[in-house]
Amino acid sequence: MATIVLYSMNRTAQNTARLCFFPYSTRASIVDSRISFFNNTSVRRLTPLPGARWVPKATGVQFMSNGTAGKTATGRTRRSALLFAGAAAAVLGFVASASHFQRAEMATMITKTEETEISEKCKKFMSPPCTDVKVLEQKKEEMCTRMEMLIMETQAEFCRALEEVDGGMFKVDKWERKEGGGGISCVLQDGKVFEKAGVNVSVVFGNLTEEAAKQMRSRGKVLRGKDGILPFCAMGVSSVIHPKNPHIPTVHFNYRYFEIEEEDGTKQWWFGGGTDLTPTYVNKEDGAHFHNSLKEACEKHHPKYYPDFKKWCDRYFYIRHRGETRGIGGIFFDDLDSPNQEEAFSFVRSCAQTVVPCYLPIVYKHLNDPFSPEEKDWQQVRRGRYVEFNLVYDRGVKFGLATPGSRIESILMSLPLTAKWEYMHEPPKGSQEADTLEVLRNPKEWV
Amino acid sequence: MATIVLYSMNRTAQNTARLCFFPYSTRASIVDSRISFFNNTSVRRLTPLPGARWVPKATGVQFMSNGTAGKTATGRTRRSALLFAGAAAAVLGFVASASHFQRAEMATMITKTEETEISEKCKKFMSPPCTDVKVLEQKKEEMCTRMEMLIMETQAEFCRALEEVDGGMFKVDKWERKEGGGGISCVLQDGKVFEKAGVNVSVVFGNLTEEAAKQMRSRGKVLRGKDGILPFCAMGVSSVIHPKNPHIPTVHFNYRYFEIEEEDGTKQWWFGGGTDLTPTYVNKEDGAHFHNSLKEACEKHHPKYYPDFKKWCDRYFYIRHRGETRGIGGIFFDDLDSPNQEEAFSFVRSCAQTVVPCYLPIVYKHLNDPFSPEEKDWQQVRRGRYVEFNLVYDRGVKFGLATPGSRIESILMSLPLTAKWEYMHEPPKGSQEADTLEVLRNPKEWV
Repeated sequence: MATIVLYSMNRTAQNTARLCFFPYSTRASIVDSRISFFNNTSVRRLTPLPGARWVPKATGVQFMSNGTAGKTATGRTRRSALLFAGAAAAVLGFVASASHFQRAEMATMITKTEETEISEKCKKFMSPPCTDVKVLEQKKEEMCTRMEMLIMETQAEFCRALEEVDGGMFKVDKWERKEGGGGISCVLQDGKVFEKAGVNVSVVFGNLTEEAAKQMRSRGKVLRGKDGILPFCAMGVSSVIHPKNPHIPTVHFNYRYFEIEEEDGTKQWWFGGGTDLTPTYVNKEDGAHFHNSLKEACEKHHPKYYPDFKKWCDRYFYIRHRGETRGIGGIFFDDLDSPNQEEAFSFVRSCAQTVVPCYLPIVYKHLNDPFSPEEKDWQQVRRGRYVEFNLVYDRGVKFGLATPGSRIESILMSLPLTAKWEYMHEPPKGSQEADTLEVLRNPKEWV
Repeated sequence: MATIVLYSMNRTAQNTARLCFFPYSTRASIVDSRISFFNNTSVRRLTPLPGARWVPKATGVQFMSNGTAGKTATGRTRRSALLFAGAAAAVLGFVASASHFQRAEMATMITKTEETEISEKCKKFMSPPCTDVKVLEQKKEEMCTRMEMLIMETQAEFCRALEEVDGGMFKVDKWERKEGGGGISCVLQDGKVFEKAGVNVSVVFGNLTEEAAKQMRSRGKVLRGKDGILPFCAMGVSSVIHPKNPHIPTVHFNYRYFEIEEEDGTKQWWFGGGTDLTPTYVNKEDGAHFHNSLKEACEKHHPKYYPDFKKWCDRYFYIRHRGETRGIGGIFFDDLDSPNQEEAFSFVRSCAQTVVPCYLPIVYKHLNDPFSPEEKDWQQVRRGRYVEFNLVYDRGVKFGLATPGSRIESILMSLPLTAKWEYMHEPPKGSQEADTLEVLRNPKEWV
C-alpha cells in the first residue's frame, strides 16, 4: 500500500503555492492519509501543464480542458474559482491518469500556507458570510466564528470542485431569516454532470423554549432557560448532490454546531454531522474508498469514532417502511460534546475536509460510464426512495419544515430534480439492481 | 339550467337494462341531479351504435372505438367490464357530443334494477371481497357488510370507468394482512390517459390499545377497552388518479368506516371521507362542475354538509410549509357519527356514487387537449407538491407507514409515477401557472 500525496496548485498563486483545497493549517495532515484501496501505487512528481495545472509525467491524460463533461465553460464569470481550480484539478488529474482505481498513480502534494486573515479568507467564499466580517474578526477566537469560517470554507471548496467537473456554475442565494440569522444556498441544477447539486450554509440564532431546546438534542437533555427562554445559535453546512449518470452515486453531508445559553449563563454546545453515499448501483471499490476515507479522518481523533458512527449512520438513514437503508452509509453522529470543544471541532474539521477526497474521485471515475434507459429508470426509482426518507424521517427536514421562518427552498433543495414511484417495483433476481437492494437491506462492512 | 339525465346501457344486458354504473337502489336519484354549469342543454334521445353503445343522434361524434386516448384495446381480457361499459360510454358520448361544456347536450337515463343478492353483486367486483361471501351473506344487515359492499362497488365502477377511457387494464392485487383482514389494490400504470391510477380497498380488523384507538379519531375521544384492548374493524376505499395530460386534473377520494368495541360491548362507529381535485391548471368550469356535483350529493343529506366539509377540505389539504393548498379542494369530513348510522351511511353512499360523475366528464373534456413541454414540466412540479403533502402531512399515509403489517405499496400508490423538484421554481407573473398558484394560495368558492 503506497502513500498518496495530494498536490494542488492554482494558476494565479503558483509561486506562493497558496492552496484552497485544504484551507486550514492542519491540511498538511492529508499528506499522510492513505487511500488504502489503491494497490501498486507510487508517489510521482508532478509537472505543471500550461495554466499551472498539474498532471503526472508521462501519462496519456485526458485533462480537464480536454474532457467532455468535465470541461470548463470558457468565458463564464467565475468568482474566485481559480483559487479552487487546483483542488479539483488534482482530483481530476488523479483519476484521469488512473482511469481506474487499480491503476491509480496520481499524487498531489500539499504545501502549508500561511494563516490568512479572516477578511482575506472570506474573499474566497461563495458569498460574504452570514455574520458581518468585522464581527467575525472581533470574535475570531470564539467557536461560533471558527465554525462559521469552517462551514463557509467547506461550502466554497466543495462547490468549486463540483463546478470544475460539471462545467456549470452554482446559483448563489444569500438570504436572511427575519427571526435572526440567515444563510447562503448554492444550487447547480440540470448541469452536464449533476442533475441537482445543493450546498447550503445557515447560521441562525434567536430564543428557544425549553421544549424546543429539548427537541434539538437527539438525547433530549433537559435545559433550563431564564424565564423558560434559551438564547441559541445553530449553524451548519449541508449538501446533497444528485448526478445525472446512474453510475455516479448521490452524496450527502452535513456538519453542524449548536450553542445554547442556560439560565445561569453557562453555554451548552455540541456538534453533529456525517457524510453518506447513496449509489444507484452498489460498487465495492467505490464503497471501500468512501468508507476508508471517512475511517482515516475518524481515526486521527478516536479509534471508536468510525465503527460507532458507521453503525449510527446505518441506523439513521433507514427507510423503516421499506426495510432498507437509503444508501451504503458512511458516518453519522450527533450531540458530540467530548472530549472537549477543541478536540470535537478538530474532528468535525477533519470530516469536512474529507468530503472532496472521498467523493470527487468516484465522480471522475464514472464520469463517462455509459448507461441504459433501464439503468436511468432504476436511478429514478431510488430517487423516489430518497424523497421518502427525506420527507418522512429526516430530522433536519422535519425540524426545518416545522420551524416558522425556515427557508423552504433551502431545506428541500436536497430533493432530486426528478423521481419516480413505480407500483410494486421489484428488480429480477440476480440482476445488478437486486444486488444493490440486497446490500441496502443488509448493511455491510466496507473496510 | 337544464336537467341532465344519465342514460347507460351495456351490450350483454341490453334488454334487462341491468346497470352497474350506479349499482345501488338509490341510483335513480341521479336522474334529478343537475350538472348546473351546463348551459343551453336539452335532453336528447340516444340511439345505439353497433355494439349497443349509445350516442346522441345527429352529432358528429368521435366515439370511443374511434377515439385516440379513449380507444378500447380490442381483444383484451376484460373481467366484467362489459357490465360497466355503458357507464363510461354515457359519459364519453356526453362529452364527445359536447366537445365543450357549453355545448353539452348529452343525456343518459337510469333504469332502476332489481336488488341483486350479495353473491351476484360480488361477481362484478375487481376481485372477490376481503370478507368471505358467505360471511357477508350471513351478516348482510350489519354495517360492516354494507360498507364493504359499498367500497367494493365503488372500486369496481370507478376502475371500469377509467379502463374505458384509458383502454388499459388495472392490475389487481388481493392481499392479506397477517394481523387480520386484507385488501384489494387496483393499479393502472403508464396507460394512454393515466400516468398512474390507483384504487384501493382495505378491510382490516384486530385489537387496538386505548392510545391507538384515541389516535384513530380526529377528535381524539377516549375509549375504554376490556383490559385496555379494543376490538376494531376499519375499512375504506381510496383512490388517486394521476393523468398524463397536464390539462386533466388529478383526483383523490377516500371513504372509510371505523367500528370499535368498548369495554361494555357497545360499538363506537364513525365514517370519514372526501373527494378533492388537484388541477395542474385551474379551470373555472371544471372547478364549478366538480364542486357542484359534490354540493348536490351533500345537499340531499344536510344543508351544512357542503359548506362545512368544503372548508374542512381546504384546511386539511394544506401544504403548510408552502403556504398553499394541494389542489382546489372538494369535501372532507371525519368522525361522522350523526344523525344516526343509517343516515350517515346514506350520505357516504351518495358521496361515493358521485365520484364518477364529478370526475369523468372532466377527463373526457380534456382528453385530447394539446400541451407543451413547459405545461408538462409545470405538472411535474405540482406532482412534487403532491408528494410533499402525502408524505409530510397526510394522516392516512402517516398512520399507514407507522402501522406494522401495512401494505406499503398500497399506501404509497397515491404517489405519482414521476415528479420534479426545481429549486426556486416561481412562475412568471400573469402566466397561467401563476394564476393557478394564486388560487392555491387563496382558496375560493366554486359554487
